[in-house]
Amino acid sequence: MTASGDRLAGATHGSGTDLSRCSLNTATVKHATLAQAVDAAATAGLGAVGLWRHQVQEHGAQKAARIVSDAGLRVSSLCRGGFLTAHDEAGVAAALDDNRRAIEEAAGVGTRELVFVVGGLPAMSEPGRGPRPDAGPGDRDLVAARARVADRIGDLAPFAAEHGVRIVLEALHPIFAADRAVISTLGQALDLAAPFDAGVVGVVVDTYHVWWDPALEASIARAGREGRLAGYQVCDWILPLAAEPLNSRGHVGDGYIDFPTVSRWVAEAGYDGDVETEIFHEEVWATDPRDTARTVGERYARHVLPHL
Amino acid sequence: MTASGDRLAGATHGSGTDLSRCSLNTATVKHATLAQAVDAAATAGLGAVGLWRHQVQEHGAQKAARIVSDAGLRVSSLCRGGFLTAHDEAGVAAALDDNRRAIEEAAGVGTRELVFVVGGLPAMSEPGRGPRPDAGPGDRDLVAARARVADRIGDLAPFAAEHGVRIVLEALHPIFAADRAVISTLGQALDLAAPFDAGVVGVVVDTYHVWWDPALEASIARAGREGRLAGYQVCDWILPLAAEPLNSRGHVGDGYIDFPTVSRWVAEAGYDGDVETEIFHEEVWATDPRDTARTVGERYARHVLPHL
Repeated sequence: MTASGDRLAGATHGSGTDLSRCSLNTATVKHATLAQAVDAAATAGLGAVGLWRHQVQEHGAQKAARIVSDAGLRVSSLCRGGFLTAHDEAGVAAALDDNRRAIEEAAGVGTRELVFVVGGLPAMSEPGRGPRPDAGPGDRDLVAARARVADRIGDLAPFAAEHGVRIVLEALHPIFAADRAVISTLGQALDLAAPFDAGVVGVVVDTYHVWWDPALEASIARAGREGRLAGYQVCDWILPLAAEPLNSRGHVGDGYIDFPTVSRWVAEAGYDGDVETEIFHEEVWATDPRDTARTVGERYARHVLPHL
Repeated sequence: MTASGDRLAGATHGSGTDLSRCSLNTATVKHATLAQAVDAAATAGLGAVGLWRHQVQEHGAQKAARIVSDAGLRVSSLCRGGFLTAHDEAGVAAALDDNRRAIEEAAGVGTRELVFVVGGLPAMSEPGRGPRPDAGPGDRDLVAARARVADRIGDLAPFAAEHGVRIVLEALHPIFAADRAVISTLGQALDLAAPFDAGVVGVVVDTYHVWWDPALEASIARAGREGRLAGYQVCDWILPLAAEPLNSRGHVGDGYIDFPTVSRWVAEAGYDGDVETEIFHEEVWATDPRDTARTVGERYARHVLPHL
């Protein structure tokens, strides 16, 4: 219910700042249980949490939804479907099966926003590692891999529509184009979404992944105009990169991203949904979840909220 | 003379494969002297070398040019001008001064292609490191930094034209947008070049930096149509990234990039200039320069030449 759900009145922290649109993606407190993550978000005065599928699978969708709602929070999104680039018949069938389950889990846990990370090249051995020794030229064919993503979205869209779930395409930073996601820009995500109803295939703006894009302002405006802006995720681009670049994200304000400008573009595009903070970083993960959630609220209040 | 220079007849290696368009960028053999790098390229049967300014400064332009021509090679390009994003008066003046010297050096050493890496955000402390502690929101303003790059190109273009040198804009991978280059796509480089004569401001396609771009085919075709395709540099995207991501490039064929497809796009755009291999990697730098140059030629012959 990111873009259209009810707002919790009075979800404010001590200073009276309205944190009702501030959501804690539970990956930011990776080592917390669902109950601990929800407690941390509620204690910090946040309005929502973003969940991951393993939490829904662990508790069952109904119980996971109740853990969240009992704390007075909403589910802003579910991460994640995707991994659609296989070019063999068994791989395609497995991807479709898994994504149908993800769609059911999103519906069951009470969010209509299911974030998709679409997967890397078939040449990949495993994420973050080099190509398979037997990878041929076709396994490096990025154009073909992107075309298969389009085909798989077409396969899944009717099932998502039936379940009231939106496939939310996430562009990942080009650093991950080989091994995690062949969608590399917001504009490309919008092109892939274009053939489908805006209520069935949307896009998410994640600052970490798209902040550098010369076309970002135009693509955010287009996403708003087309009714596809299904989420806004924030975290910062910090340097030096961590040894595992996937886990190299910083709290909002600690890095290079111009949050006032990007947040203004998102607001001007008409987005009135939740703002999820999603940070992958070992030091953040080693911090007490309540401290992390409080920092998330403070940074949102300082760098994002005034520009929404 | 990348795009228009004479071809050396008979620059072939033992097997008869024509390596006359294969150029060794001397950064690939970082620890070699200019004489050693030239010897390695000539011994491997390559047709050209790409130079760096420190080599020209060390020997003087005339002597550096003679070291190259005495070995029967051409200079395919000079790296590099740029670093144009300063927003203080002294920083702007220093950048203009330095780039005028670079333009003179390019003319002196006999290439008209001067590669520009345009610099990162003013918030940067030093490349690869976090923002300055005193960096304010304006120092993270990417839109403004890009506008300053456009202004500085305008300042330098007449001087380049007078010297018969082309400012060759290089889009760097978005991993470097914060700290090294706010030009992140080939399309953006072409937009920045658009106000100027194609003989004065051009672009280079470096596979490492642009391979992931969904608009790559269209942007390469546009560069050809506009007469701005001033260079083609190749090296591979390998994983895992090195601790210093700048030095994380692989020999052609060792990573994820689809060289047949990108090389075909470059050829179809009408490019008939040199193909520089430019690799920053500690292991490559630790290899004997003659071995590295031979590998460069072999990989070019296998993965690039058949598609040109």
